Amino acid sequence: MVTRHHPNDTGLLTEQLLDAINNNNLLAVASLLSRLVPEEISEILEATPPAQRNALWQQIDPKFQGEILAHTNDQVRSSLLDQLEQHEILEVVGHLQTDDIVDIAQSLPETEQKTLLNALSDEDRFAVEIALTYPENTAGGMMSTDFIAVREEVTLEVVMRLLRKIGELPDSLVDLIVRDRDGRYVGTLKLNDLLTHDEDTLVSALVDRHKAAIHGMTPAKEVAHIFEKYDLIAATVVDDKNFVLGRITIDDVVDIIRDQAEHNQMASAGLDEEEDLFSPPSRAAKRRTFWLGINLLTAIFASFVIGLFDASIEKIVALAVLMPIIASMGGIAGTQTATIVIRAISTQKLSQANSKLLILKEATVGLLNGLVWAIMSFAGVFLVFQDWTLGLIFAGAMLINLIAAALAGALIPIGLHRMKIDPALAAGLMLTTVTDSLGFFVFLGLATIIIL
Amino acid sequence: MVTRHHPNDTGLLTEQLLDAINNNNLLAVASLLSRLVPEEISEILEATPPAQRNALWQQIDPKFQGEILAHTNDQVRSSLLDQLEQHEILEVVGHLQTDDIVDIAQSLPETEQKTLLNALSDEDRFAVEIALTYPENTAGGMMSTDFIAVREEVTLEVVMRLLRKIGELPDSLVDLIVRDRDGRYVGTLKLNDLLTHDEDTLVSALVDRHKAAIHGMTPAKEVAHIFEKYDLIAATVVDDKNFVLGRITIDDVVDIIRDQAEHNQMASAGLDEEEDLFSPPSRAAKRRTFWLGINLLTAIFASFVIGLFDASIEKIVALAVLMPIIASMGGIAGTQTATIVIRAISTQKLSQANSKLLILKEATVGLLNGLVWAIMSFAGVFLVFQDWTLGLIFAGAMLINLIAAALAGALIPIGLHRMKIDPALAAGLMLTTVTDSLGFFVFLGLATIIIL
Repeated sequence: MVTRHHPNDTGLLTEQLLDAINNNNLLAVASLLSRLVPEEISEILEATPPAQRNALWQQIDPKFQGEILAHTNDQVRSSLLDQLEQHEILEVVGHLQTDDIVDIAQSLPETEQKTLLNALSDEDRFAVEIALTYPENTAGGMMSTDFIAVREEVTLEVVMRLLRKIGELPDSLVDLIVRDRDGRYVGTLKLNDLLTHDEDTLVSALVDRHKAAIHGMTPAKEVAHIFEKYDLIAATVVDDKNFVLGRITIDDVVDIIRDQAEHNQMASAGLDEEEDLFSPPSRAAKRRTFWLGINLLTAIFASFVIGLFDASIEKIVALAVLMPIIASMGGIAGTQTATIVIRAISTQKLSQANSKLLILKEATVGLLNGLVWAIMSFAGVFLVFQDWTLGLIFAGAMLINLIAAALAGALIPIGLHRMKIDPALAAGLMLTTVTDSLGFFVFLGLATIIIL
Repeated sequence: MVTRHHPNDTGLLTEQLLDAINNNNLLAVASLLSRLVPEEISEILEATPPAQRNALWQQIDPKFQGEILAHTNDQVRSSLLDQLEQHEILEVVGHLQTDDIVDIAQSLPETEQKTLLNALSDEDRFAVEIALTYPENTAGGMMSTDFIAVREEVTLEVVMRLLRKIGELPDSLVDLIVRDRDGRYVGTLKLNDLLTHDEDTLVSALVDRHKAAIHGMTPAKEVAHIFEKYDLIAATVVDDKNFVLGRITIDDVVDIIRDQAEHNQMASAGLDEEEDLFSPPSRAAKRRTFWLGINLLTAIFASFVIGLFDASIEKIVALAVLMPIIASMGGIAGTQTATIVIRAISTQKLSQANSKLLILKEATVGLLNGLVWAIMSFAGVFLVFQDWTLGLIFAGAMLINLIAAALAGALIPIGLHRMKIDPALAAGLMLTTVTDSLGFFVFLGLATIIIL
């Protein structure tokens, strides 16, 4: 029973599956698929190139397709839904909870979305329609509307009867929502309390009234932060008037936490975190080319700065040889500071109170590293070029650029954040523009003044 | 009851707290602290510079200090533990679960750790000692040893009696561990099943024997992957012989997921993810200077490549002006590919089967973007310099470098991963070395052959 999951488990199965698909060995495909749970099949579909992905998808029993779709990312989900006829989509969503139906509905074009909604039971359609009115990245857009609610004036015996009638309860069900007579949120009743209290106890005696509910418009990022802070397993979502809309459980939040943490990394390369590993090259190229274009503009600016000093370079070619080193060191030092500051911002650790101190600390780090590398640089340049003036100029430019890089690495993300611009997206490019241009300017400028 | 958490809530409270600390207004400090839960106080301590952090720490009631320490990161925890006398540490850990005691023990020097262990009850000490034998980043190092286990041959009535005796059950307790007569893991019993089945049912009739346990040596990263894949709330940890060691719950896993995702970002700037926001500048500088040194070596290599063509630059200074653009575009394109490949590796989506296809796809993206920017570059250089030969050379170098960047961006992380080196750490620098050096070499080389 002990499982030692190895990272290549899925890798090996993926390979066997792809082999079977490529050889059109449908028996082997069916046998391999039967050994996998829907979550694993989702992962394999995400890791498979489009042609085989579609072939594989067609071999999957429609009664599992819904749950598989619920676990894939938006891009792969859309591409798989494209393969299904309208009536197949209806069949596929049959067994799903409303939060998963909402995810699928969000991936469909409007007309298909309408057909899907019309095919649902009145109760489900109503629930899905409410969820669809909330943006995807809010508590309302994440929530499931399949929740169990009880009234506070009933006894535990009544609650137990209700639960027995429902039968199988999901693992993640740790508490019930308690509502008042009008349907407004009161608090939660821990299921574990049902085990440890007498049947004639009133729900009102046990309800946790301090368990705050989350408003439907709360951003997903903030929902994740609340779950992490209070170690929640589930939370209730309410509207403006405190009416219960649905429930969010930790498994949805885990996805948000992963996406949010990856967002910084992906955004800094100008990428969309939903990018399908095997999106068609033309589409991937189109998405990325915008970022390359922006970068070209910043590179042209740095190049323009060099152009200002072309006369100096013509006289001393060593300047052209050495200048990229200054720019590169500034870039790295600035990125180190910016990474720390962006993380502080995204974990909500940056306030008015501590940002000045953080800038001061980072500038001090820049000064210390600037001094270290200025001395090393002087020694290096002097040894290679036997020219102490050039060494001093290089060392001076290094010192100035490392301090400037630390300041820019702290100030740019903080400034962007205050202007409500996502620092993960824009800080990197702005920072490189500063460290490159300033690095070239200081080094070539100092050389022009001192030597020429 | 509806809470709308605003990102600056904590910011505002932090500022008020710091003001109160700075003015030595202890009454205000106590009143502000009483409005916060331990998790919030941990966040504030992490976001506070050392001097005020220590002053604040001294105002916190020792009976909350343990839980606060359990939520802070390793660096801040060590710095706070340093403030406490041995007898205070013992008092502080009094109310904690063993997994939190393990975290604290791991942050203590060996002699203090021993004193701590000796002060624990026999049962707790035994549990903590077992957990300490597992490395921090494994299932054994993360687990809590406070679990509830039952034997499979008893009835639900017996289980209910046991639970009533224990009283208050934690939220995250969703199932009990079922063991055989020898204490070996059999499976789990969902607490919700206790609610929906008769009291005389045997545990053996309800135990979920398919719920796999996790081996104590499973890396934390892999534990997180298992939890995410199967939407787990809790899992049992066992040793080689299938004896139950402890439990891991989703709240521990959420921390791992966040750390793991941040690791890629921090590692690519040569930073340690545990870095304290306010670590002393000299220590921060020392940590970062190593990375700057490595970068300097790569920058010197690129500079050496330029040096090979100093005669060409002397004749055509425009080469020096234009060369950083080629290098910069290659760097961005390579980073885009590497970011996607590193994410595929860390989410275990990369296998032998699909890596060739991924490399091919990325090379195609590089070719497409290379063509787009080669054409744009030719037009740009021709307009500025009125020199179509220079334009062609620049465009050719752009095309070659963007394709090479895509190939390097895919091959370097894949190669490092196969060599069991963390690609997040080393790929960025290696990539820049390739894109810079190759960019300079191709551009200056082409110019030297064609023009001179």
